[in-house]
Amino acid sequence: MKKFMNAAETMVAESVEGFVRAHEEFVVFGADRQFVRRRHLVPGKAAIISGGGAGHEPMHVGFVGRGMLDAACVGHIFTSPTPGQILNAIEDVDTGAGCLLVVKNYDGDLMNFEMAAEMASSRHRIEMVIVSDDIETASTNDGRGRRGIAGTVIVERLLGAAAENGMALADLKTLAAGLASRVRSMGVALTGVTVPHTRRSTFSLGPEEIEMGVGIHGEPGRSREPFSNADTIVRHLSEVVFNEVAPVSDKALLFVNGLGGTPPAELYLAYNVAHRFMQGHGLQIARSLVGTYASSLDMQGLSISLALLRDEEFTLWDSPVATAALRWGC
Amino acid sequence: MKKFMNAAETMVAESVEGFVRAHEEFVVFGADRQFVRRRHLVPGKAAIISGGGAGHEPMHVGFVGRGMLDAACVGHIFTSPTPGQILNAIEDVDTGAGCLLVVKNYDGDLMNFEMAAEMASSRHRIEMVIVSDDIETASTNDGRGRRGIAGTVIVERLLGAAAENGMALADLKTLAAGLASRVRSMGVALTGVTVPHTRRSTFSLGPEEIEMGVGIHGEPGRSREPFSNADTIVRHLSEVVFNEVAPVSDKALLFVNGLGGTPPAELYLAYNVAHRFMQGHGLQIARSLVGTYASSLDMQGLSISLALLRDEEFTLWDSPVATAALRWGC
Repeated sequence: MKKFMNAAETMVAESVEGFVRAHEEFVVFGADRQFVRRRHLVPGKAAIISGGGAGHEPMHVGFVGRGMLDAACVGHIFTSPTPGQILNAIEDVDTGAGCLLVVKNYDGDLMNFEMAAEMASSRHRIEMVIVSDDIETASTNDGRGRRGIAGTVIVERLLGAAAENGMALADLKTLAAGLASRVRSMGVALTGVTVPHTRRSTFSLGPEEIEMGVGIHGEPGRSREPFSNADTIVRHLSEVVFNEVAPVSDKALLFVNGLGGTPPAELYLAYNVAHRFMQGHGLQIARSLVGTYASSLDMQGLSISLALLRDEEFTLWDSPVATAALRWGC
Repeated sequence: MKKFMNAAETMVAESVEGFVRAHEEFVVFGADRQFVRRRHLVPGKAAIISGGGAGHEPMHVGFVGRGMLDAACVGHIFTSPTPGQILNAIEDVDTGAGCLLVVKNYDGDLMNFEMAAEMASSRHRIEMVIVSDDIETASTNDGRGRRGIAGTVIVERLLGAAAENGMALADLKTLAAGLASRVRSMGVALTGVTVPHTRRSTFSLGPEEIEMGVGIHGEPGRSREPFSNADTIVRHLSEVVFNEVAPVSDKALLFVNGLGGTPPAELYLAYNVAHRFMQGHGLQIARSLVGTYASSLDMQGLSISLALLRDEEFTLWDSPVATAALRWGC
């Protein structure tokens, strides 16, 4: 497997440096390059911080900016950032209204974000939101529950918009709790994911096999299935997320996310299948998102996320956002 | 090779349908789905139409909208749209100020766009711009000259912005002519490109080979080289485009474009190398673009585009654009 890289040890640092150079309109490095920070902080706004292992770009650095995140902490490939990184980000971006940590549901991330929150707690008001949008699988995160995958993008956008509009820390936590059962995602892999250190795949799929319910680190999913056409694959994903999401609204945001190696033409074809499925099951697709937002290095595959939102949440979605990966209204 | 598709014959139609469903805020289908049209035309504005074979998404459908294209005509995979499609688009989107056709320099596209222009000429004022930003290669387009590749995105954006600002047809043609020598691109392939009809690659590269100067249909480039690290590969691309671009300005737009199968993390790493190279050679990188904008189906690879622009062209670049793939300022 060939990759654009120099050395596995420096790949993350070089890639994040390139990101910051390309988007200095929105972001700057924090001290010692331990995190990526919004260029212009808003005093008195509750700060939103996220982060996780590298290898999921543009998540999370691509979401730093107006209307979304104030900082993103990047770990090594598929490895949580350290408590020190997170603590430094808190110290830097909390302008007095407290800090919300948005954490994907993985043991390493939880441990380190919790540790940072504890270390910061004497000087900062901290709340934590755990995103676990993945569908239920037997192998889900070793019993820790649903994993956090592409639905994280939706949660971070809505929380970021609400914070930008002046929502207080406690209310942001309530908003996130309300979203928890209404955002569901499921992924499928056509290939494994090539880890830079070995240039080998973490798991192998035969030429006619796919992994249904795959995680964004290549974790096994619900089942290994024979490769099939897009209608079969995408309808299955759509059916599972439709069945697992809490049916509190019939207005939906439908999100087809590429896992890194899948080109736009295929994502749009998959979107078409998912859109027709959801409409056929009585949902009104009020908003859409199609693209590579939460990747798994170079994995060929995609995930379908379905979010059933209230009108005020669609208003939040539509409000101005200015980040490298999501941008509208300004 | 596995792809998200149902049948090769319907892949383009299904993918474009998905695109239109996902972005109905910006676009609608033209009559008989022969082209994708901007939802809200601006009477009295010179119309800009582009198009080409499918397989390069989001180019060109992703650029239909305010500040860029009024219509995009999509052919079969890697095959020009027909003169009839183009003619229908002209008839539909020309609101009286004439129509500029932006065509990538390939025989099939030129023939069909020229034929459409001729058929429309009795009722419409038509001008044509041919984009040929690729570096000079021995095999370039069978003697027809430099191919049009990712630099097309820059040309379409600047022309679209100028038209939106009220520039007349003849002046748009002059603007395009002025850009011709100042936008240069070069691509590299790490893998071949899998054609849907056969699910096989159009050309094969060994596990340690790359194709330098590859075209967006997998055309051979300048040379087949041994796989190397990102510094070596990207500096070489950067050096060639730097040497081939007309040195009329030291303010640059630097664009790293993914060819479909290359994930964001690698594109940002490559951007970092290219940015440092250009700065080291005295250029000021005033704007950047990083992402998959002009793809070649699922090819792993990227291209570097360098555009040396005048201040008024940067102002055009920054002006509001609202399309599926490029969006800012509104």
